[in-house]
Amino acid sequence: MKAYLAGPDVFLPNAVAHAAAKVAICARYGIIGRPPLNEEFEALANLPAEQAWRGIFKKDIEMMEACDIVIANLTPFRGASADAGTLIEVGWFLGRGKPVFGYSNTATLFEPRSHKLVAAVPDPIPGLLVEGFGLPDNLMIPGAVEYGGGFPITLPPDGIDRAFDALEVFEICAAQISQA
Amino acid sequence: MKAYLAGPDVFLPNAVAHAAAKVAICARYGIIGRPPLNEEFEALANLPAEQAWRGIFKKDIEMMEACDIVIANLTPFRGASADAGTLIEVGWFLGRGKPVFGYSNTATLFEPRSHKLVAAVPDPIPGLLVEGFGLPDNLMIPGAVEYGGGFPITLPPDGIDRAFDALEVFEICAAQISQA
Repeated sequence: MKAYLAGPDVFLPNAVAHAAAKVAICARYGIIGRPPLNEEFEALANLPAEQAWRGIFKKDIEMMEACDIVIANLTPFRGASADAGTLIEVGWFLGRGKPVFGYSNTATLFEPRSHKLVAAVPDPIPGLLVEGFGLPDNLMIPGAVEYGGGFPITLPPDGIDRAFDALEVFEICAAQISQA
Repeated sequence: MKAYLAGPDVFLPNAVAHAAAKVAICARYGIIGRPPLNEEFEALANLPAEQAWRGIFKKDIEMMEACDIVIANLTPFRGASADAGTLIEVGWFLGRGKPVFGYSNTATLFEPRSHKLVAAVPDPIPGLLVEGFGLPDNLMIPGAVEYGGGFPITLPPDGIDRAFDALEVFEICAAQISQA
């Protein structure tokens, strides 16, 4: 079973080593992890921006087509919610009818995270609703994972936020997938 | 042609009137706009949170199934990128093979927006990359729109940010769709 390893992990300074660690964890649970690294595609490196981003997009879509499931890192990234590119990919798998799994290193729920963000960066107009269903993110995300994969987003089991690049919760998620 | 009107518009204080204005604009271009309003579903209002959010998710997915295209409001919302729920929906339409269209009221590009956000809310660990391809958002989003719909995300034509709830750029997008 091939798993597309979506997440803002591609933006880590040690993205290649981090991806290798995730692939090794997947292997322990019988999953073939496929990280969407751009570093492996030397042909992209020397292209002008207009061609490079389209090359990355096409390469990622092809990798998604070749995978059976997605395991998404839904840890919040530069805002109240998960990484934007990751969310497109999660939606794509849901639309394709392929199983969707996800985890977050953040135990703090979406509603308090949203209020904290709005306190730091005020909303552009007053009166914008903060969604509050006791969920880890905008309801479409836990919905995509629960309906797409069969169980909720995997969170830190003790309710304590982990480091942005921690892999403990990812491993719990991989174990849950292998049992499901 | 039925268009799912995705966007953070559902969080506006005047969400119902705003949705009606978008539906009226669509009608001028031969498009049947379908806004995912929760206000229309009284049955959801009195449910406990656990049932309410799942009801909204299922209702939105059913509405997406019944639509031919998505017109997504990709104006940044509580972070460097577009609204999280909207991105799941955009990815869903791309995965389903249904045309994807989108617009943003923000002319400022993703890279300077990301740097501005990081200055206000520092990244959780140092060295995280800021993506820089001269695009309006994470490359998966302009990719989903360009490959899904055939033309780029519609932006303010004069390069000047519009108000969060402005409808001028939405109307330009609707006109482009009707011509395409």
